[in-house]
Amino acid sequence: MKKLDVEKTAKLLKQQNKILILTHRNPDGDTLGSAFSLMHALKRLGITAKVFCCDEIPEKYNYMFEKQDFGEYDDGDDFTVVAVDIADAKLIGSEYIEKYSDRVKLCIDHHISNKEYAENLLLRDCAAACEIIYDVINALGVEIDKVIADCLYTGISTDTGCFLFSNVTQRTHLIAADLIEKGADFTEINKVMFETKSKGYFLLEAAALQTIETYFDGKCAIMTITQEMMDSTGTSESDCDGIAGIPRKIEGVLVSATLRERNDGTFKASLRSHAPVDSSKICLSMGGGGHARAAGCELSKECFDNDKAKLLTFIKEELDRI
Amino acid sequence: MKKLDVEKTAKLLKQQNKILILTHRNPDGDTLGSAFSLMHALKRLGITAKVFCCDEIPEKYNYMFEKQDFGEYDDGDDFTVVAVDIADAKLIGSEYIEKYSDRVKLCIDHHISNKEYAENLLLRDCAAACEIIYDVINALGVEIDKVIADCLYTGISTDTGCFLFSNVTQRTHLIAADLIEKGADFTEINKVMFETKSKGYFLLEAAALQTIETYFDGKCAIMTITQEMMDSTGTSESDCDGIAGIPRKIEGVLVSATLRERNDGTFKASLRSHAPVDSSKICLSMGGGGHARAAGCELSKECFDNDKAKLLTFIKEELDRI
Repeated sequence: MKKLDVEKTAKLLKQQNKILILTHRNPDGDTLGSAFSLMHALKRLGITAKVFCCDEIPEKYNYMFEKQDFGEYDDGDDFTVVAVDIADAKLIGSEYIEKYSDRVKLCIDHHISNKEYAENLLLRDCAAACEIIYDVINALGVEIDKVIADCLYTGISTDTGCFLFSNVTQRTHLIAADLIEKGADFTEINKVMFETKSKGYFLLEAAALQTIETYFDGKCAIMTITQEMMDSTGTSESDCDGIAGIPRKIEGVLVSATLRERNDGTFKASLRSHAPVDSSKICLSMGGGGHARAAGCELSKECFDNDKAKLLTFIKEELDRI
Repeated sequence: MKKLDVEKTAKLLKQQNKILILTHRNPDGDTLGSAFSLMHALKRLGITAKVFCCDEIPEKYNYMFEKQDFGEYDDGDDFTVVAVDIADAKLIGSEYIEKYSDRVKLCIDHHISNKEYAENLLLRDCAAACEIIYDVINALGVEIDKVIADCLYTGISTDTGCFLFSNVTQRTHLIAADLIEKGADFTEINKVMFETKSKGYFLLEAAALQTIETYFDGKCAIMTITQEMMDSTGTSESDCDGIAGIPRKIEGVLVSATLRERNDGTFKASLRSHAPVDSSKICLSMGGGGHARAAGCELSKECFDNDKAKLLTFIKEELDRI
């Protein structure tokens, strides 16, 4: 598929009259920040623009848009589809893949794994898609106002763990500085994104922390989250996402696995590691996969103890290798 | 006391032959980052320089210096004392106050509460003392190398909760961008400062989380840490610092109090609040004090239940006021 640069992307966008911007399913701060900042910028140029996502947008992102900014156009309408922060057309969401995947005219993304399913602007060394949208908006000649700054800051802050992860670059900070100057309410955004959790979340965390077992001289930590824990704390699978990263933070731990029980009694194992431990290698041996520092695999209901022992064996092998 | 600007501070430093840089007790990333970055810069100019702190420096800061960079000079020596990130001469540490407090020639600090106990360079709108030292090093004409960049980044990152707190400014990000360009190993620094905790810490957190009680329609949360919890998890008071901020993160909570039992059975209450709740007002009513969003007071051993009820009454009063 044709590759575009920032200038050509801006030119292409300016030629459209009506644009539908798609975000990925289970929308996060970066896909939403990208979509709504671009939408605001396009509207400023007199282009009709709307954002759509197959899943509901969590309330905490409400400051990015008005109700009428979200949704699909009537079927018969003629409009251009733009995908932001969507690595694979599948991530548009099951019921909408057929409807939209072949209609995507332009994809703006930063994922290494991007499938190049449309004309695209891919800048894979950007920490967030919002860093690319920042350039596109500047190329469009639209001045960044408070709401655009809020959207862009949100994407950059959430995709970098508030400037903590290794994907941060010098440019990430330079853009953040500019967005703060332009009015981004970073204090409130960070409070909502990083400092606000449900009481149930903390109770689940407390229960999960107490299950931590360490192995191999403390180089490996295993944490278990059961359905019973989620039931008794009124939490759901989505609450587990933040918790899965905790055992890797224990001093001396090189690889951790969080075992989360599903409704059907099977377990999902989420592995996290520090360099040079390769989580994906361990998970591949278990029939799973993923990235070097974050990967996943399955443990069965019937042979849970056996599968857990197998996982520990593969972890040990990897620890012996490094 | 005489106030200096960055240029005059640099000039004063250049006139010295031998400098002892003091950090505050219970040293943190900002006081140590300030001291060691300044030390490296001064040495580059041919000035003899060393850092001293009354308390031991936690191992995690080892990358900032070599063993011989730390310690006092022999008593008879003639040297200039510079205090960094020390708001009050008392914070030099009990046994050393008498020895050094009157000898401090220059204080470089960012605390609003600075007592101006020496000639000083005070820039109170800086998020970290390291932001000021960054300017001073530039004014000294010393090029920032990797170790100086590591030290300065550490102070800025730790004093802002990794760019999360409201003290961050546009300039904070601009300096971070420059330090990353100059080689600051921000990934490793952030991992050590924010992503590494002892197993005991997590067990203490688990135990503490289970004590959370909420009051006044969930606007207030109280968490309790007993000596028994610390004993059974092998943790100490210093481990409690990070935990004290947790209950404020619960959705809907406007003010939280973490009650931490001391060796003698009394309790220290650490209050944290969201605007506009004034924690210092509540604590003042209890005979304590502090800042608007973080303050403290005491609860007695004998009248614990009574004192806790009193604290809740003052919290209720403040919640009714806003």
